[in-house]
Amino acid sequence: MKNDLKICMSQLNFKVGAIDNNTSKIIEAIKNCRKKKVDIVCFPELCISGYPPEDLLINKFFIKKINSSLKRIADETRNICCVIGHPYRVKENLYNCASVFINQKLCGRYYKNHLPNYGVFDEKRYFQTGNEFFSFEYKKTKIAISICEDIWVNDKKFKKYLKDNPSKLLINISASPYSVKKEKLRFKKVSNFAKKNQIDVLYCNLIGGQDELIFDGSSMAISEHGKLIYKAFSFKEENKIINYPLRSKKIRKIPSNNIDSIFNALVLGVRDYALKNNFTKVIIGISGGIDSAVVSAISKVALGGKNIYGFALPTEYNSDESLQLAKNLSDNLAFKLGELSIQKIFNENISLLYSNLFKDLKWDIAEENLQSRIRSNLLMAISNKFNYLLLSTGNKSEMSVGYSTIYGDLSGGLAPLKDIPKTLVYRIAKYYNKKYPNNKIPAGIINREPSAELKPNQKDSDSLPPYKDLDKILNLYVESFLSINEIFTATKIDKRIIKKIVDLIDKNEFKRRQGPPGIKVTNVAFGKDRRFPITNGFKNY
Amino acid sequence: MKNDLKICMSQLNFKVGAIDNNTSKIIEAIKNCRKKKVDIVCFPELCISGYPPEDLLINKFFIKKINSSLKRIADETRNICCVIGHPYRVKENLYNCASVFINQKLCGRYYKNHLPNYGVFDEKRYFQTGNEFFSFEYKKTKIAISICEDIWVNDKKFKKYLKDNPSKLLINISASPYSVKKEKLRFKKVSNFAKKNQIDVLYCNLIGGQDELIFDGSSMAISEHGKLIYKAFSFKEENKIINYPLRSKKIRKIPSNNIDSIFNALVLGVRDYALKNNFTKVIIGISGGIDSAVVSAISKVALGGKNIYGFALPTEYNSDESLQLAKNLSDNLAFKLGELSIQKIFNENISLLYSNLFKDLKWDIAEENLQSRIRSNLLMAISNKFNYLLLSTGNKSEMSVGYSTIYGDLSGGLAPLKDIPKTLVYRIAKYYNKKYPNNKIPAGIINREPSAELKPNQKDSDSLPPYKDLDKILNLYVESFLSINEIFTATKIDKRIIKKIVDLIDKNEFKRRQGPPGIKVTNVAFGKDRRFPITNGFKNY
Repeated sequence: MKNDLKICMSQLNFKVGAIDNNTSKIIEAIKNCRKKKVDIVCFPELCISGYPPEDLLINKFFIKKINSSLKRIADETRNICCVIGHPYRVKENLYNCASVFINQKLCGRYYKNHLPNYGVFDEKRYFQTGNEFFSFEYKKTKIAISICEDIWVNDKKFKKYLKDNPSKLLINISASPYSVKKEKLRFKKVSNFAKKNQIDVLYCNLIGGQDELIFDGSSMAISEHGKLIYKAFSFKEENKIINYPLRSKKIRKIPSNNIDSIFNALVLGVRDYALKNNFTKVIIGISGGIDSAVVSAISKVALGGKNIYGFALPTEYNSDESLQLAKNLSDNLAFKLGELSIQKIFNENISLLYSNLFKDLKWDIAEENLQSRIRSNLLMAISNKFNYLLLSTGNKSEMSVGYSTIYGDLSGGLAPLKDIPKTLVYRIAKYYNKKYPNNKIPAGIINREPSAELKPNQKDSDSLPPYKDLDKILNLYVESFLSINEIFTATKIDKRIIKKIVDLIDKNEFKRRQGPPGIKVTNVAFGKDRRFPITNGFKNY
Repeated sequence: MKNDLKICMSQLNFKVGAIDNNTSKIIEAIKNCRKKKVDIVCFPELCISGYPPEDLLINKFFIKKINSSLKRIADETRNICCVIGHPYRVKENLYNCASVFINQKLCGRYYKNHLPNYGVFDEKRYFQTGNEFFSFEYKKTKIAISICEDIWVNDKKFKKYLKDNPSKLLINISASPYSVKKEKLRFKKVSNFAKKNQIDVLYCNLIGGQDELIFDGSSMAISEHGKLIYKAFSFKEENKIINYPLRSKKIRKIPSNNIDSIFNALVLGVRDYALKNNFTKVIIGISGGIDSAVVSAISKVALGGKNIYGFALPTEYNSDESLQLAKNLSDNLAFKLGELSIQKIFNENISLLYSNLFKDLKWDIAEENLQSRIRSNLLMAISNKFNYLLLSTGNKSEMSVGYSTIYGDLSGGLAPLKDIPKTLVYRIAKYYNKKYPNNKIPAGIINREPSAELKPNQKDSDSLPPYKDLDKILNLYVESFLSINEIFTATKIDKRIIKKIVDLIDKNEFKRRQGPPGIKVTNVAFGKDRRFPITNGFKNY
């Protein structure tokens, strides 16, 4: 193995905009690689800026600072080859670029050919399309470069280029965000590319949370036969050194348990959102229901029980059972629970409104929302006073149909379950209890019937169809863009119910627009992934 | 003038998604045109769907419904030529299309060549780029077609096409949103195009409000010499019939008074947001300050005083003067004013929090925000009870630096002043008072010093630099993307102040992200026009 190359895939966690810190992290990795006699070290797409930098890219000073960092990085490449992603301006054009430095000199640059501009991606807003390919030789190995989307696209020109300029190895640097089953899809795409082009592939992906997006890492080495030779950790940093040529060995597999990866994504999402925004502690309204329990469980794993401050905020409509279950939860998960009864404040509001304005009117949704908003006020006051991050506990099913109160339970810096349908919330709870048997979510919370407890004997099922039906409709309408008739054909659920749910989803865009960011987990998440008008006269029938 | 063509520019107000209503409106216009012996009637870009339809375009059923409408429209073109904009799918590709129907038959289709994907635009998310040009002959006049952005771009291929296929007239159908000075810029662009290509131009633009965007209409007829022959109304529907060939005559000019157009844009924005979302009445928190006064004035013109319900919600920190000025305002503008003291509710919150949790702690921003949020709760309860649209009164200066309370005064379905810097708020107040001398904003409101009145003797100037400085920095940083050094060079304002403001703008993205939509007026509005990450480590120095 004398002629082996040692190649490091530096799958690291960067923060958008934090150019100096990102650069230091890159330089530290290069130094460690040199110590370990690594020949080539590669970093993910746009890692100096973080991904996605959004409109920071329009700021000339931002681009200038990246250029300075790039020089610092180039200077650190004594006796090593470095492949690194960053935005790069050429005259008036900005490119999504991979630079290759060898021994402190620029070997060449590749500009991304395929700019994704769908789903969560807006790359055509910022970047010009590259229209050339790039390969180089290092220590007798011919290596081609591509960036993320380039390897997802069946590009005949690139195929021809690789044929005319035979390379042994393709290094693809990526910032490919997580969604459920994405890892399998990614393997399939990269594996097909390798086979079709008869080229080994090192796929180096970003890891970390950035607002709505989670990058899962899961970098891979795949042989020219399409075989998975190595897979890096998911949801975790890793500087993995690979010996090249690739040789088969016992490997980490692509996990088939989606719940496991969903839970890990949520944990990383909460941790990175909190820490990257300078919060170490979170505050959560604890109702005794399943959603706040699962948000607590995720936060427990992400930040530790001592960094969670839970609050029960009951009125007379909240059962004793709810408070008891909240207490059991805080005991099991070892976080502090405060109790603040909002009854007096609620009464004061009611007496003010009913003394004149609402006199002789019936109670309705206004009074229900009011309770939720009084809770939000107290939680935000505590958040402001102690600088804790308020987590909103709403799930995707609720937010889709507007079964949540804007400025009430929708309040918070982050809504970890925003992209988690209610039925999946339950599955996560059960998964968590198996994995953390010493810090269980009380069975009573999992088994009770969901209720907002905003009026006497209220149940979610009073206003909504069973969650298993709601979630089916939600999935087919939002993720698969099916029409009402198509949903009916697929599910046989009563058409009036389908119509009602679809209407509610459309009508409640205004609430979601003012809700907190969530963590994208499904194929189509509310947020930058799904961009609907608020003012919208379309009827799906 | 026997051989004259009569051409109608139908500058109409459509609603996104409301395909059936939009189609009826189009058909009605065609029928009226036929009665008036119009030869050609043209409608704005994407008028069947409304603009911008956003992710509705991904819905296949939506596209199908548009195709049905298109057939209905085609059927109505007996003895008339109709140029109409709509999304159009060809196999898997969607185009931003202009169809020309003559006498119930399709004459041809043009697919937009230049898809804007910057600022508020996302057309590359949805559409494929057209790569052919289109012209047709009708009643011996050769007419070319283009769509919006096509006429803003210096396209040599199109120039060559027009040379090789000499047309007398170009019809450009547009959905070009308003911003200050845009009308002049638009005239310059279209006029230059006409001169360069020696072609007459009819420029038919959309009118109406759609979420953050206002389309101002201002359709134009411009001669091949670049001369403005006719200008349609701004901010108002018009079916203007032009005789072709164009002949000079006394015309409506492009207005030089920007305040006038800004005010009209805000009025149209409030009216269309309310009505298109099925609200006839608005509710506004009236503080006795300038912002709520200007929002009332805009609403008065948009919806009438009888459709405004104002509320004063004082605590002991609000001066008697504030309440008196609020009353004067409601008298002058003839809207109803309710008064709800929040002192007791505030006291109840404080006693709950200080009984234990906050014991021995100092009052700070938490208590200030709390007052603002108690107000929001009451306003939202009233909004929920009576189905009034809550308008948020915050201005661009406040929202930029986070001098506003999330879930407090940031609450509302729409924030009319979101894109209006404080100094411009004052200019609008003065403009309004001149224009509506019988319904004046009280001078006392315009002349008093701004204060949030959330603690004793508070003034905005305690925490912020003078608004004239703040607004300069805001403009140069947000609209012109200047760095701190460049702003210093341009303004000579103390660098520490510039740095502080820029930091605050960056840091408060999380608040704006959960704020209501506003009405875009400046060159760069917070919202879909300016897309910054929440998690953002970039420092502009």
